[in-house]
Amino acid sequence: MKSICIIGDNGHYHSVLEAVRENPSEYQTLCISPGFPGENISGLKNAVDSAGIGYREHGDYQTMLQNEKFDAAVVCSEFNLHAEISLHAMKKGVHVLCEKPLCTTREDYERLSRYAGSVKVKISAMLAMRYEPQFYAAYKAIRSGEIGNVRLLQAQKSYKLGERPAFYRKRDSYGGTILWVGIHAIDWIQWLSGESFVSVSALHSNMENFGHGDLETTAAAQYAMTNNAIATVTCDYYRPDAAPTHGDDRIRVTGTKGVVEVRNDGAFLLNGKGSVTLPHDKKLNSFDDFIRYINGAADVRLDMEQSFAATLAALKALESADTGATVEF
Amino acid sequence: MKSICIIGDNGHYHSVLEAVRENPSEYQTLCISPGFPGENISGLKNAVDSAGIGYREHGDYQTMLQNEKFDAAVVCSEFNLHAEISLHAMKKGVHVLCEKPLCTTREDYERLSRYAGSVKVKISAMLAMRYEPQFYAAYKAIRSGEIGNVRLLQAQKSYKLGERPAFYRKRDSYGGTILWVGIHAIDWIQWLSGESFVSVSALHSNMENFGHGDLETTAAAQYAMTNNAIATVTCDYYRPDAAPTHGDDRIRVTGTKGVVEVRNDGAFLLNGKGSVTLPHDKKLNSFDDFIRYINGAADVRLDMEQSFAATLAALKALESADTGATVEF
Repeated sequence: MKSICIIGDNGHYHSVLEAVRENPSEYQTLCISPGFPGENISGLKNAVDSAGIGYREHGDYQTMLQNEKFDAAVVCSEFNLHAEISLHAMKKGVHVLCEKPLCTTREDYERLSRYAGSVKVKISAMLAMRYEPQFYAAYKAIRSGEIGNVRLLQAQKSYKLGERPAFYRKRDSYGGTILWVGIHAIDWIQWLSGESFVSVSALHSNMENFGHGDLETTAAAQYAMTNNAIATVTCDYYRPDAAPTHGDDRIRVTGTKGVVEVRNDGAFLLNGKGSVTLPHDKKLNSFDDFIRYINGAADVRLDMEQSFAATLAALKALESADTGATVEF
Repeated sequence: MKSICIIGDNGHYHSVLEAVRENPSEYQTLCISPGFPGENISGLKNAVDSAGIGYREHGDYQTMLQNEKFDAAVVCSEFNLHAEISLHAMKKGVHVLCEKPLCTTREDYERLSRYAGSVKVKISAMLAMRYEPQFYAAYKAIRSGEIGNVRLLQAQKSYKLGERPAFYRKRDSYGGTILWVGIHAIDWIQWLSGESFVSVSALHSNMENFGHGDLETTAAAQYAMTNNAIATVTCDYYRPDAAPTHGDDRIRVTGTKGVVEVRNDGAFLLNGKGSVTLPHDKKLNSFDDFIRYINGAADVRLDMEQSFAATLAALKALESADTGATVEF
C-alpha cells in the first residue's frame, strides 16, 4: 500500500489517477497541493473528483511533505520549479515521478543529479511516450534485430499551439520548446537506438508564434551518437487546428537491415521480409511501472539514469540553439 | 534546331534522350563521347540506340568540342570531373547541363562559378527532382499561400545501395553522399522555402557500408535559413532491396497556416480547410526546360544561380560533416 501526493497542476497526472482508480487497494492516501503560492489547482481537483478518488488538499507542498508520510510524489507544476520541488521531496525520503523536463537550467540539473546520485530514493521523468503502444512496438522490433544495427533516426514532434498559459510565454518559467516538446523525441532516440549522445547542434525560433512571447514555435536538433549513429529531432507548434489529433509524433529508425517507422499512431516495419504493420501490446500504465521501479524491479521501461540522460541531452540542445555552438557530451 | 552532345555515362541523360525523341525536328546533331580516357559508354550508346536517335561517337570530348559545333553539352561522367569538362565546354561557347553535383571541391566551385559569372553561356545542374510532379505540386501549393510562411522543412533521401561502381567508393571520385544524394533535398529546401542558406551543421558516416569504401551510408545536415526558417536533411543508403521503389524521397514543409508533405510519390496538404491530396500536373521534361532557359526564357523551373546555390550548400554541408564545425554562408 502506497501513499502518494501530486504537487501542481501542469502535467500528465492523468495516468497516475488512472493507476489509482484501477487498483484502489494499492493506495492508502492521496494528497494534493499547489507547486507555488497561488497556483490554481482546480483542474487537478476536478480530475481527482471525476476519478472518484478520495484525497486531502494542502495549501503548500512544504507543509504537506512535513506533515504526511509519502512513498512517492508526482511533481507537475510550472517547469522551472520542478527541480526545487523534486529536491524537497527527495530530501524527505520520497521517490519522485516528475513531469519532464526535470529542470530547466544546467545549474538545477547539476544540483538534482548530484543529490539523486547520493541517496536511495529515485526520481524518474514523465517520458510517457515510451508507454504508447506504437512506440513500444517499434522498440521491440528493433531490439529483436528486425532492422539490424541502428544507423539513422529522424524524430518529429508537431503540436497544435492553441492559447498557451502565460508561463509558457517566458523562457524563465517555460524553459524552452526543446525542453518541453523536444525531450520526448530526444528520449526516443536514446531508447530506440541503444546509443549514447556524443554531441548536438540545434536551432530554434520564436518568430511567428502568434503572440506567445519567448515560446519557440520551431526547433531542430542534430545529434551525433556513439557508433557514429546519427539522429535528428524537429519540433513545431504549427499543427493546424483542423488536424484530427493534437500531436503528429513520428520517428523513422533506419538500420542496416531495414526501417521501422511510427506515425499516425501505428508502427511499421520494412525489411528484407517485406513490409508489415507491427502488432501493439496493451498499454502499460506509466505510473504502475514507476511504482514497480521504486519497488526494485529491474525490467522497467524507464529509469532514473535514462531520465537524466534525456534531460541533459535536451539542455545541451537548448544551449546549442541559444549560442549557435555545437555542444559535446 | 539545336546540336547537342552527351559527355560520359554516369547520370540521368534519359530525360535528354526523351526530349530529343519527342521532338526530333528540334535537334540537328547528337554526339557522344566518354568523359575520360577509357570510360565505358556502352550504356549510353545502348540508350541512344534504343531511343532510335542517330548519333556520332567521338573518342574524347576535347576533340569532339574542337571539331563540332554545339548549342548545349550534357555532362555526366565521374563526379569529380564535372567541373573540368563543364569549363572546357563553356570555354567553347557551349551551354552546359551538368549532372549534379557541378563539382566536388570548393576550389572547383570557385573556378566554375567565377567563369560562369563572366560569360554569356549558362550552366545548370540536373536537379531533376524539381520536375517530379509531386514536388512541383507542393511548390505550387506553398507559393499560392496554402501553408502561410514557411518555418520548418524536413527532407529525406533514402536509396537502395545495391552494388555501386568502383568510383563511388573513393571520396576523390565520388565526392561524398551529401553531394550526390543530399543535394536534391538541399535544393528542395531553397526552392520550396524561397529562403537562402545562413549556416549548416552536418554529420555523415561510412560505417556498415557493405564494403563500399569511403561511401557514406548515412548523413544529416541542419540548415539555418533566412527569416529564421529551419531545415533538416537526411540521406541513407539502407532502403531494403525488398522495397517497392528505389528511393523513398520525402519532404515535409511546415508553415504558419499548414503543412505540405511529399511522400509515396504523392503531395498532401493539411491546413485550416482540412486535408487534401494535391493534383499533379503533367511532367515537364527537364531538358526541354533547360533548352527554354538557354533560349532566354525567364519562367523556367531551375536556373544557374539556384544550381550554384544548391551546389555550394552541399559543399558546405560536406565540409561541416568532415570537420565537425558549423559552416556559415
